[in-house]
Amino acid sequence: MLAEVEGSSASLAATAVGDYRDEATVLKFAAEVDVITFDHEHVPQPVLEALVASGVAVRPGPHALAVAQDKTVMRERLSAIGAPVPDWARVTDAGELGAFLADHGGVAVVKTPRGGYDGKGVRVVRAASDADDWFMSAGEAGLLVEQYVPFRRELAQLVARRPSGQLAAWPLVETVQRDGVCAEVFAPAPHAGVLADEARALAERIATELDVTGVLAVELFETDEGRLLVNELAMRPHNTGHWTIDGAVTSQFEQHLRAVLDLPLGDPSPLASVSVMVNILGGPSGEWMPDRYARAMADRPEVKLHSYGKESRPGRKVGHVTATGDELDDVVARARAAAAFFQG
Amino acid sequence: MLAEVEGSSASLAATAVGDYRDEATVLKFAAEVDVITFDHEHVPQPVLEALVASGVAVRPGPHALAVAQDKTVMRERLSAIGAPVPDWARVTDAGELGAFLADHGGVAVVKTPRGGYDGKGVRVVRAASDADDWFMSAGEAGLLVEQYVPFRRELAQLVARRPSGQLAAWPLVETVQRDGVCAEVFAPAPHAGVLADEARALAERIATELDVTGVLAVELFETDEGRLLVNELAMRPHNTGHWTIDGAVTSQFEQHLRAVLDLPLGDPSPLASVSVMVNILGGPSGEWMPDRYARAMADRPEVKLHSYGKESRPGRKVGHVTATGDELDDVVARARAAAAFFQG
Repeated sequence: MLAEVEGSSASLAATAVGDYRDEATVLKFAAEVDVITFDHEHVPQPVLEALVASGVAVRPGPHALAVAQDKTVMRERLSAIGAPVPDWARVTDAGELGAFLADHGGVAVVKTPRGGYDGKGVRVVRAASDADDWFMSAGEAGLLVEQYVPFRRELAQLVARRPSGQLAAWPLVETVQRDGVCAEVFAPAPHAGVLADEARALAERIATELDVTGVLAVELFETDEGRLLVNELAMRPHNTGHWTIDGAVTSQFEQHLRAVLDLPLGDPSPLASVSVMVNILGGPSGEWMPDRYARAMADRPEVKLHSYGKESRPGRKVGHVTATGDELDDVVARARAAAAFFQG
Repeated sequence: MLAEVEGSSASLAATAVGDYRDEATVLKFAAEVDVITFDHEHVPQPVLEALVASGVAVRPGPHALAVAQDKTVMRERLSAIGAPVPDWARVTDAGELGAFLADHGGVAVVKTPRGGYDGKGVRVVRAASDADDWFMSAGEAGLLVEQYVPFRRELAQLVARRPSGQLAAWPLVETVQRDGVCAEVFAPAPHAGVLADEARALAERIATELDVTGVLAVELFETDEGRLLVNELAMRPHNTGHWTIDGAVTSQFEQHLRAVLDLPLGDPSPLASVSVMVNILGGPSGEWMPDRYARAMADRPEVKLHSYGKESRPGRKVGHVTATGDELDDVVARARAAAAFFQG
């Protein structure tokens, strides 16, 4: 494993430390391995292409990762394969944004095509001038503008795919976002009905059409009319799949490795009727409270606590808890109670 | 972690490599840590005592480990606390062995007090001269001789204990031994009835009386009369607890670390109605068949496969599989089918 920074939590498991943007560093690391995969989408395309040229298997490949790296490319590709997405446009100035607003009830969502995460690079706009600061640095690529979707809730469908084409889908989950950050995940999504099958078929189609290998996370809106729209894609183990570590026969991490190694996929079935994951964020002071670990363990022996060993910053994900059981209300309450011990 | 040999599977996770019998090596390693624990019982008592003197927490402590290191000491201590054990004696020559045989129907089991495992150092004897070779090297410590117990089956009760005294017991399991080696484990033990409560109480009492910290495995006979007798003790995560990795809310490895760190213990409840573990042994040729890994994964996506990365030798444990489900017969069949792919 190539970690970015010495002393980071990732470096504890790493065999090398270096900059993933530096072609020589990455090629040197790749010379020792059979397959390259990623836990984020930020490796530059020239580095990815150099890896392919060097002969190492890159999974997912540059062509698939390009779709996860640029939100405008993602919308283009999803539209091209007929996946349901919000109305969208690429806009390069306030005039084009104003025209989109006029066509969509005077409200829209503007996104920077690259580099956003956890609500960063996303802004609700109501005037053509609301994105002027972003246009100044956007250049020719412009910005992505999307219809503001009235939705009942957010969902996520995770699927794994091998180079040989085999697919395995975990159950559809409901995700609760706060301030643009995933706060809670309920697995399976309560009362999903036919949407569960639709979401699975949709994610499998996207994985196949985009030639994704490894885990694909499809973040979805369930609209007020009960339709599914694709919000975002991620091509790696994803926050909405952390529940699988404790709650599924095969976790997303094991499955990602099976998939990129082109080994047969494991059973994604849940182990319990209900699993609930609650993220632990750094508190307003930039603290989280690891001294409360023992109290959380004592209070909730059945809840699994995961600390990432990361330095805390306000709102940063520094860990999560997972509870499993039979009744959603009970499991949610237990998971929240355990997570509350860590909030500063 | 201190691993014994460079290049071993343990060394992949180790922060140091060295001889656990060498006091200087172990003390140097211990200077960097808060708590010392073990994955075998072979660290010599003088090294353990030096660790304690150095101020590091040693869990389990030398006084507890002494009981697991010497089978005669184990029998003495278990008898002293009134735990049910087979009739036994310490014998130092053929005459004493002959007297024991005469009192026990002409058949008995002789054990070397130290260093035995997986059936090594254990012999069924029918004549006073059957252990002459072992007496020659046994010295003053002599040999342990035990009543040959007619039993219905073998069971194991695992429990974890913290220094502060908190206990947590997994369900009683049935173990199937072949040629003195654990072959299969069924969790929970089928049709255990009241024995499950008796075994739990017994293991908790042994852990408390012997001041064990960490995981204690109590291997048991269920006699033809339906009574429990203690066969062996181990003070560490144990082969009969490997099913907990995939089949329990808290695995024996997580629990052992919680216990020796004096952190609150996790829930030992099973995740499924039935879990079955089947060991994978090196084949008669000294081979096992890792090339069949992908076929086993494809054939049994719901079974979890564990390879230890060890060099194969005939009969050596090189991995295991765990299956979970609702019906014992079905789960056993699936686990055996998966394990069969690896046999040479």
